[in-house]
Amino acid sequence: MGRDKDKEKLAFNLKTPKGTKDWQGTDMILRDRIFSTITTVFKRHGAVTIDTPVFELREILAGKYGEDSKLIYDLQDQGGEICSLRYDLTVPFARWLAMNPAVQNIKRYHIAKVYRRDQPAMTKGRMREFYQCDFDIAGSYDKMLPDAEILRIICEVFEGLGWKENGSFMIKINHRGILDGVFEVCGVPKEKIRTISSAVDKLDKVSWEEVKKEMVEEKGLQEDVADKIWEFVQRKGGSEILETLKNDEELLANESMKRGVEDMGLLFEYLESFGIMDRVQFNLSLARGLDYYTGLIYEVVTEGSAPDNTTGQKLQRAAKRDKSNEFEEDRSNDPSVGVGSVAAGGRYDELVGMFSPKAQIPCVGISFGVDRIFSITKARMEKLKNTAPLRGNEVDVYVMAFGGKGFTGMVRERMDVCKILWDAGIKAEFSYKLKPKLPAQFKAADVNGVPFAVILGEDEEKAGKVKIKELGLPEGHPEKDGVMVDKANLVREVRSRLEQPGATDSVTASMDELVVEDTKTTGKTGDDGV
Amino acid sequence: MGRDKDKEKLAFNLKTPKGTKDWQGTDMILRDRIFSTITTVFKRHGAVTIDTPVFELREILAGKYGEDSKLIYDLQDQGGEICSLRYDLTVPFARWLAMNPAVQNIKRYHIAKVYRRDQPAMTKGRMREFYQCDFDIAGSYDKMLPDAEILRIICEVFEGLGWKENGSFMIKINHRGILDGVFEVCGVPKEKIRTISSAVDKLDKVSWEEVKKEMVEEKGLQEDVADKIWEFVQRKGGSEILETLKNDEELLANESMKRGVEDMGLLFEYLESFGIMDRVQFNLSLARGLDYYTGLIYEVVTEGSAPDNTTGQKLQRAAKRDKSNEFEEDRSNDPSVGVGSVAAGGRYDELVGMFSPKAQIPCVGISFGVDRIFSITKARMEKLKNTAPLRGNEVDVYVMAFGGKGFTGMVRERMDVCKILWDAGIKAEFSYKLKPKLPAQFKAADVNGVPFAVILGEDEEKAGKVKIKELGLPEGHPEKDGVMVDKANLVREVRSRLEQPGATDSVTASMDELVVEDTKTTGKTGDDGV
Repeated sequence: MGRDKDKEKLAFNLKTPKGTKDWQGTDMILRDRIFSTITTVFKRHGAVTIDTPVFELREILAGKYGEDSKLIYDLQDQGGEICSLRYDLTVPFARWLAMNPAVQNIKRYHIAKVYRRDQPAMTKGRMREFYQCDFDIAGSYDKMLPDAEILRIICEVFEGLGWKENGSFMIKINHRGILDGVFEVCGVPKEKIRTISSAVDKLDKVSWEEVKKEMVEEKGLQEDVADKIWEFVQRKGGSEILETLKNDEELLANESMKRGVEDMGLLFEYLESFGIMDRVQFNLSLARGLDYYTGLIYEVVTEGSAPDNTTGQKLQRAAKRDKSNEFEEDRSNDPSVGVGSVAAGGRYDELVGMFSPKAQIPCVGISFGVDRIFSITKARMEKLKNTAPLRGNEVDVYVMAFGGKGFTGMVRERMDVCKILWDAGIKAEFSYKLKPKLPAQFKAADVNGVPFAVILGEDEEKAGKVKIKELGLPEGHPEKDGVMVDKANLVREVRSRLEQPGATDSVTASMDELVVEDTKTTGKTGDDGV
Repeated sequence: MGRDKDKEKLAFNLKTPKGTKDWQGTDMILRDRIFSTITTVFKRHGAVTIDTPVFELREILAGKYGEDSKLIYDLQDQGGEICSLRYDLTVPFARWLAMNPAVQNIKRYHIAKVYRRDQPAMTKGRMREFYQCDFDIAGSYDKMLPDAEILRIICEVFEGLGWKENGSFMIKINHRGILDGVFEVCGVPKEKIRTISSAVDKLDKVSWEEVKKEMVEEKGLQEDVADKIWEFVQRKGGSEILETLKNDEELLANESMKRGVEDMGLLFEYLESFGIMDRVQFNLSLARGLDYYTGLIYEVVTEGSAPDNTTGQKLQRAAKRDKSNEFEEDRSNDPSVGVGSVAAGGRYDELVGMFSPKAQIPCVGISFGVDRIFSITKARMEKLKNTAPLRGNEVDVYVMAFGGKGFTGMVRERMDVCKILWDAGIKAEFSYKLKPKLPAQFKAADVNGVPFAVILGEDEEKAGKVKIKELGLPEGHPEKDGVMVDKANLVREVRSRLEQPGATDSVTASMDELVVEDTKTTGKTGDDGV
């Protein structure tokens, strides 16, 4: 009776919802590697993780995201509380801090999906469901110490992901105090500061002419004020930018500017200690959209594409020439740059207080856009020929059997051997066929790059022997045809082979090792180019 | 101007939505350990993971969960597609298989949150947002081979979690073919089979009298048919149950029964090879609610509480007496049993075909209820005095400084040392105070159980020396006051100490090692009790 039903056509499309996708195969493995690389860095700095629900009371999210609030996914009112899917991990973290006043300081990380009803752009890695990796330091501390450590963490993450070469990523930094100070000194009316700030933030995408037009024509700023702003916001570079601000008495008379300049002075000292000054670009046009930032802000950009592309070379050259402006201006032609920043964050000292005025806790944090990092890393690996391929699974031993006429398939014996290996914690598989053919068993092992076969035969079984064969050995290798061992010694024999360097490389290699060839190649290409 | 606003009271409760919670601290660490234990077992058997979106098109979920469909969370219609939060991980997996016809076989695991608008019962671990850990084998194979491996995986998971002692968990198994055969032979009309099956499934919670009343009075079954069913469904035990079925010619004449008996015969052979016969109870009253099961079904129950409780002892005794009935009947008094089964699953050969009739793929799988496993494990660990405490974070070295009058705080020097350690991949922290007091620094290290301190002093700094001190050493230990080393050798000196056995125990210990004391205690208590 069910049969007829089965033959009916489905009345709907078989798909995932718009802007979402399934993760599978080597993509999934690569994504997990990225997560584990990032988690390793977070833990190296003492972070612990917390996990919050995927939906929050709608009131928790209200009033936090400005006009982006329209992108929030709401749950249907099915009776009871009104909820929405989380939009980021920062607001839930602030809500958690407010709910747990006993926690006066914490370094927490959180890797989880967030939801935005945005127009999806799959090719640029913009999805409606996507992962964020957040690290935040909450607590009242001496100035700029946690901020400096966050920047250090950013560097460790990208270096851990294999972006080691000079100029392969750049952290643009600025300070809300400096930005506000500039606006005040230039004569922007107080009530226009945030909206003028948003206009400035667009300078990484559109020309000054367009930004100025927006300021003057749309937002009613006086033209001479706009021109004064331009004097400042085109400045970018290293500590010399700070020096020019420090030497400007008119600027320093502004309280907000003074605070920003002092903070940045301390920060540069600390970045020196942490050995990451060359990764940082002080960029006065960086403004960041979100309202809740109160101090240091930053954004990470990367060439994000093959080592031999133009932007990559320019980035390297720019880095060598001690932060020229060339980097910024030339990015627009590179399609990979379209993915935007790959990480961003800043200090937000007042967000927790929005939930609980008594529980005000200063915070500073960073959010890594893993889907974008994934897209870039994948493109990068695909261009490399000598990268170790990602394996389908992590099985170390495929247990197989073969025999001549009247071969029983030895299924119970294969199961026995698997049991022995599993009991010893060794990853092993066998064919779910009673009488599998030998080539089919080799193929099954090969598909997943399983490094070793344990081969049973009926005569060998009687003699208490099994054969261990390392798969993929070249012709002429002494163990090419396998080695016969006593079944009683099987675990020891397998283990000693698994422990040989290289035996399980592509499973155990770090991201860093996987893409290390890239760095070498880049080094060469870079030399040619300069 | 923001100040006045800050002082306003919040107009809403600061909380997570009903039936959801934040995970934090040692709970979070313990949960992650459970995940990683389970994942290790899954990978040992060749599993790979896939990740599906948290919401699906509503049509995908429709018609899969019977009357439980009312518990599905719907997203609000904000224009565009109509979606719902996933209710389990099995239906999304079947949808994925139907969408990926090139995948003809896969062992996949998926650890993720699912959503049910049920009445929450926090104490029993029943939440509206909760984790499931699923492992499924999809593909056309020889009979019962994947099924046997799933049962083996269940055993490895619970043993990996520390439930090693005899009788600490039990896998109840049955077969839909046998169950349907029993009903047919007893004379249940075809259209009543599923509803009578649901009634039988309640036998682990209510008495036969109540179940019979439901069958006869509510569901209109003849009383003598009900009585015949009772003859069968009270049977439980090992392979002897199968023998009685095999020897009953009337039963074997039923096609469905014949198929079931053959399957179970094969299964018992394979369980013998895998060495897990003593973990399994053939239980003819196990029926499982979901409609989509087509063959073997199973459910895992556990004493779930302290080794010295009554049920625990009875379970052990029952196990020793070769599966007596005592176990089942006496569970109702134990509060911990209220959590219900801790894992359940079965074979579902027709679910994928509901999405794509052409892509029919047989599947068999298991779903672990991690929240319940978590509750039981936590209760268990809390009762143990000699379990290594879970540490707050994983930091190995706290870098501190001290000095007398005019002490600068040595912040740059502390940062230098942290940089050296981080560069070497060593987990390290320092105080975010410019001039921290020494006791405060020791306390910060102590709170998280950090095993080592690296201590800087101004005189030592001049001499290029630092002190390494293992924290928590007993009085009189030769290194109690620390060891002075050359700063140049710091990494080597720290590493050699970290590599000593025991140095980072509670971070690196497996679940198994964490609860191993439990097994020992149980062994003793069990002996006393019998």
